[in-house]
Amino acid sequence: MIVILGSNITEASEEYQLTLDALSQLPGITTRIHQIQGAQQVLTELYLIGDTRKLSAEDIQALPGVERVIRVSEEYRILGRHQDGQRTSGFHYNGVAFSQDTLHVFAGLCAVDTPEHVELMLKALREHGQVCTRMGAYKPRTNPYSFQGHGKDCLPYVFDLAGRYGIKVIAMEVTHEDQVDEIHECLEQTGRPTGVMLQIGTRNTQNFELLKAVGRQREYPVLFKRGFGITLNESLNAAEYLASEGNSQVIFCLRGVKTNMGDPHRNLVDFSHVPVVKRLTRMPVCVDPSHSVGSRERAPDGILDLMHATAQGVVAGANMVLVDFNTAPAKALVDGPQALLMSELGWFLEDVALARECYEKRQALSQRRLHSD
Amino acid sequence: MIVILGSNITEASEEYQLTLDALSQLPGITTRIHQIQGAQQVLTELYLIGDTRKLSAEDIQALPGVERVIRVSEEYRILGRHQDGQRTSGFHYNGVAFSQDTLHVFAGLCAVDTPEHVELMLKALREHGQVCTRMGAYKPRTNPYSFQGHGKDCLPYVFDLAGRYGIKVIAMEVTHEDQVDEIHECLEQTGRPTGVMLQIGTRNTQNFELLKAVGRQREYPVLFKRGFGITLNESLNAAEYLASEGNSQVIFCLRGVKTNMGDPHRNLVDFSHVPVVKRLTRMPVCVDPSHSVGSRERAPDGILDLMHATAQGVVAGANMVLVDFNTAPAKALVDGPQALLMSELGWFLEDVALARECYEKRQALSQRRLHSD
Amino acid sequence: MIVILGSNITEASEEYQLTLDALSQLPGITTRIHQIQGAQQVLTELYLIGDTRKLSAEDIQALPGVERVIRVSEEYRILGRHQDGQRTSGFHYNGVAFSQDTLHVFAGLCAVDTPEHVELMLKALREHGQVCTRMGAYKPRTNPYSFQGHGKDCLPYVFDLAGRYGIKVIAMEVTHEDQVDEIHECLEQTGRPTGVMLQIGTRNTQNFELLKAVGRQREYPVLFKRGFGITLNESLNAAEYLASEGNSQVIFCLRGVKTNMGDPHRNLVDFSHVPVVKRLTRMPVCVDPSHSVGSRERAPDGILDLMHATAQGVVAGANMVLVDFNTAPAKALVDGPQALLMSELGWFLEDVALARECYEKRQALSQRRLHSD
Amino acid sequence: MIVILGSNITEASEEYQLTLDALSQLPGITTRIHQIQGAQQVLTELYLIGDTRKLSAEDIQALPGVERVIRVSEEYRILGRHQDGQRTSGFHYNGVAFSQDTLHVFAGLCAVDTPEHVELMLKALREHGQVCTRMGAYKPRTNPYSFQGHGKDCLPYVFDLAGRYGIKVIAMEVTHEDQVDEIHECLEQTGRPTGVMLQIGTRNTQNFELLKAVGRQREYPVLFKRGFGITLNESLNAAEYLASEGNSQVIFCLRGVKTNMGDPHRNLVDFSHVPVVKRLTRMPVCVDPSHSVGSRERAPDGILDLMHATAQGVVAGANMVLVDFNTAPAKALVDGPQALLMSELGWFLEDVALARECYEKRQALSQRRLHSD
Repeated sequence: MIVILGSNITEASEEYQLTLDALSQLPGITTRIHQIQGAQQVLTELYLIGDTRKLSAEDIQALPGVERVIRVSEEYRILGRHQDGQRTSGFHYNGVAFSQDTLHVFAGLCAVDTPEHVELMLKALREHGQVCTRMGAYKPRTNPYSFQGHGKDCLPYVFDLAGRYGIKVIAMEVTHEDQVDEIHECLEQTGRPTGVMLQIGTRNTQNFELLKAVGRQREYPVLFKRGFGITLNESLNAAEYLASEGNSQVIFCLRGVKTNMGDPHRNLVDFSHVPVVKRLTRMPVCVDPSHSVGSRERAPDGILDLMHATAQGVVAGANMVLVDFNTAPAKALVDGPQALLMSELGWFLEDVALARECYEKRQALSQRRLHSD
Repeated sequence: MIVILGSNITEASEEYQLTLDALSQLPGITTRIHQIQGAQQVLTELYLIGDTRKLSAEDIQALPGVERVIRVSEEYRILGRHQDGQRTSGFHYNGVAFSQDTLHVFAGLCAVDTPEHVELMLKALREHGQVCTRMGAYKPRTNPYSFQGHGKDCLPYVFDLAGRYGIKVIAMEVTHEDQVDEIHECLEQTGRPTGVMLQIGTRNTQNFELLKAVGRQREYPVLFKRGFGITLNESLNAAEYLASEGNSQVIFCLRGVKTNMGDPHRNLVDFSHVPVVKRLTRMPVCVDPSHSVGSRERAPDGILDLMHATAQGVVAGANMVLVDFNTAPAKALVDGPQALLMSELGWFLEDVALARECYEKRQALSQRRLHSD
Repeated sequence: MIVILGSNITEASEEYQLTLDALSQLPGITTRIHQIQGAQQVLTELYLIGDTRKLSAEDIQALPGVERVIRVSEEYRILGRHQDGQRTSGFHYNGVAFSQDTLHVFAGLCAVDTPEHVELMLKALREHGQVCTRMGAYKPRTNPYSFQGHGKDCLPYVFDLAGRYGIKVIAMEVTHEDQVDEIHECLEQTGRPTGVMLQIGTRNTQNFELLKAVGRQREYPVLFKRGFGITLNESLNAAEYLASEGNSQVIFCLRGVKTNMGDPHRNLVDFSHVPVVKRLTRMPVCVDPSHSVGSRERAPDGILDLMHATAQGVVAGANMVLVDFNTAPAKALVDGPQALLMSELGWFLEDVALARECYEKRQALSQRRLHSD
Repeated sequence: MIVILGSNITEASEEYQLTLDALSQLPGITTRIHQIQGAQQVLTELYLIGDTRKLSAEDIQALPGVERVIRVSEEYRILGRHQDGQRTSGFHYNGVAFSQDTLHVFAGLCAVDTPEHVELMLKALREHGQVCTRMGAYKPRTNPYSFQGHGKDCLPYVFDLAGRYGIKVIAMEVTHEDQVDEIHECLEQTGRPTGVMLQIGTRNTQNFELLKAVGRQREYPVLFKRGFGITLNESLNAAEYLASEGNSQVIFCLRGVKTNMGDPHRNLVDFSHVPVVKRLTRMPVCVDPSHSVGSRERAPDGILDLMHATAQGVVAGANMVLVDFNTAPAKALVDGPQALLMSELGWFLEDVALARECYEKRQALSQRRLHSD
């Protein structure tokens, strides 16, 4: 059961304490407090954990400062939509708004190699008006003898350069809780020139200990990738681990499904699930065309499959695009063959804009049609 | 090896006979003649079957009336693109052009039930300016005790009504070669009021005997669905059975991949393969959102998943959309739950038009970008 | 609903006619008669098709000559077990008994090539006391330009040789109903020197028209292979098409599931489903290790994966093994790389016998344990 | 490249130091030392990491104390077999030998609930002569609100009771490196009454940070489960992370593949891969019938599918069986429906013994046949 407090109720309010006291009296029920940072104010939601079936929603609705009470299903209690269209979705981080209505492109390097390449990338992003990027420092690799990323050694120059080129948010994969500390410390030491969105990769989708650790901090939002070989429902449940520990600033990323039914693509692109994730949960939805498609083949119309897949995600309402670029194709350390070239950045962004424009027209049409019925 | 004759060369031409005689002298090589009906003229391609590796392309190029010689890979010889951008793609049928550049919506009934419902559907299509439809008379069903379609009994009124409402092409599934004869006879008897595109369903993708039978006739084009549980490459090879028997008027239909990774959709939508099929073959590509998605759920933006999937196919260049409508939801005989309502036809077509407009802009952008490089 | 008549009741019995007359009076109910040929007598089952929920089982039980009445679920009515342990399972064909209790090895050639190789194979089988074999005359191939089998031309010498070497049953794939006629005619012409079990391959599992045609004849039993990419339940439903048309002499064959999760085997071996098929249906269960495993790799213990898979099927109660041998490895026309060598036939049969012996001990243990509880 | 030292060479030997010094001179090559504890002596293998292609195997073979040099492929260098039949396989732990030749059953509780149930289980195991068990203290659950195991609180009584009932090895899942320390400390505190085999679950197969942490300790052997949705090759590569950090005492566990092709089983049983893992690597192979099959259904022969699957694994040479029992069916905390009952323990072990006996006969047959060729 979720108890949503009025938007003017804060920890300092009398109603806040009265209501929390009342809830603490309920036998077998634990209360967890979640605060969602919006653009203007903080929204407080109280999660009642335990057997809430016997509780009267009316009684709780009557407690001081309570605006609304929602009964939730077992699955993804906090991140779920629970057929309630009014629940707040999205969050602000470092000046950038993320929700089911926005769209941001995170173009960047799958694996950081040299400061020169990082600078080349960031400079190009600034020239194209971008404030987000992806930068891989910690790389989980299938083979233990493959290159595992530059790790914390590259963080100082990545953050410095990001700050210099006006980047507000860097999506960065973490594979161990200690890396969150390393990132945090380095950001502190470099004077917080930029922000970081922690990325959970597909191999760690059900690494629940990592999820709990990342969920316990509320400073950095999380980009959470769908897992290999498990259903969408299981991946959404795994994302809920983050929220159950306190961090509900989560973006869900579709990255293709591993099956040879997807050949000749590396994975079978699953962007048809964009509307599904938006319906089932309140998470903004990201698409990762680079790892889904995994090649630079192009259709007879001259458009790369990678761009077609991106447009397919965006035209159905995707809120974020995670895409790999390659500053020096021949020397790419990881995942090179699928990366876009620096010379294609402008085209790519223009193509995304066309698809977004189409989505907005489709949305307007939907509003017209639904209201005319 | 494919030998393409000049566009002015016909069976009556002297060059035609001279070249065929010369080819017939080649030891171990069989020649198959394929004629492709274009809007203005007939194009003739000669397929040399056998061990053509030892043949000199130059020698054959020098034969009378020969315009071009293409060495082909083993796979999908006739339908394949073989990295040759110039090969003719597409065909005309009953006044309608089908190619990798066109777009047609085939909205209609998954299973014909009554003349009243057929008429209701066709009338609505005419009102919206449509000249194509789908009408299922022969239904393959998983359970032998389920309704198997009205079969040939419904053909006369379906064809009559189609003619009355200006329908030029009906996509109609066949599961046995005798049904092709039944359709042909009924069209003859009713005075050819409309045309039929024979549909091969996903359960018959590798029913090679049916493919050979349907491939032996060249009157009706074929809508060929991707198979369950086999790779895209295997499905394309199966389509080649049609062409190898003489009928290369084939449209390839993506209809989702059967895997629980697609849940809660019925299948995992595979429309990211639209550009792949266009690159590998010369076939126009159809998408079937109804069977891929299999439900009427909608996203918080009010748009049905079914429409999102359709837009995803069209924005990546799909050439045909096969979609189920339901004239009387409560009484639907087959596949009811996923069908669109008659009241949604206008919205659906408008939504498709927005996605097509976007594709055309993306294509124009691609041309600008590629030429500016 | 299934009405089982007493074992002494035949078409000539008075009770038979009285009961059929009574059933024909039931509104909306159609009766289909199925006769199962046992070793000693013919068992008659009457299938009541339609909405049987309103029928009283007691009333029908009271009709003359009726032994038992079984209410069946919607799925696989005839072939299903319907939690009734007493229903007759299995059949006799050409002097060979097939049931959920027997075991037969069908070793032979995936594709017939020459009379010499057929004779080599059959001779070896006789030397090892075998009376069954497999011989592929009609081969469905993924690529239309691959060898498609010798077809009916090879039938006369295959049947003659089979007769000469004491073969009672040949499993032979058919891909078109006309091939059943060709086989039938050739058997007649050659004087029925042997018997044929018609095999439905995995590409035709849902080719319902072929199933209906094969189901309409009751002379030849059918070996029915599990389909690609569909669930076990869907394959069992497809097998029911054979029975619903009148032929319930069906053996169900597991042949692996097509997924890259099975690598480095060609398919993921699915012989864990042997007990499942025996529980859900009354069909004897065959395993096809050759197509499941698809290679001749061996474990460090010296045993081929192919033999390990076979033993796994047999130790769980498989009733038939379909296995490819190669009389001349280097020249194999189809599926060569996975075939066993003639020199391995004795080893293979001995290995199967060890696994069967183990199954029988396990079965005896089960009886002891269940009865002691 | 692997350099195997003579069995009499120890760290104290002069040859040992001479050879290590020589190897340390090789430019760009790092040497890692692995010691394998056998029953009688310690075997030392030196792994040369880096670009070893230019090294002369002959030169290195000539170094003092070197017995053999093996060039390895990129994949699973340490755990791989590299087509070398002579490499030592297996290890001893706490008095129990594990190799590709042995067989041990680990029957026990998926999730520890109460001391009473633990004792009930262990007592029954002792009565049946078993010295191994499984006990789940840390449970990773799909849903964050489900029971997550009793964790370290239950360790003291589990270890005490294990010691009291003569258990030598407990397989116990860990999901975080801190749990290894907890287990270690508790074993120390309780006076090492038993031993522990650390289990890596299927959700952590590619949690490389956990693998590295577990691989860095060499005291506890590891039971490593195949991952969801990745190929067998990728799972074997992940196991290599353990070895690359120093711990090559790894047992690989097959636990079924997650796909609806396995229905009505929970997963598609993959025990046909037993011989494959033995061929590709030197790891002993475990099968987990409980999680593969996931139900208590039984075949008409009275044998549970679970037992059939187990027999299939053992008859193909499995070296370990991990199986869930339930001391109080109705109150099972996790994975209850698939657990065997205490009353079935004797039957289960007897059934396993029959399958093992069959495997040994098959192996003897193989030796006879291979040597007679």
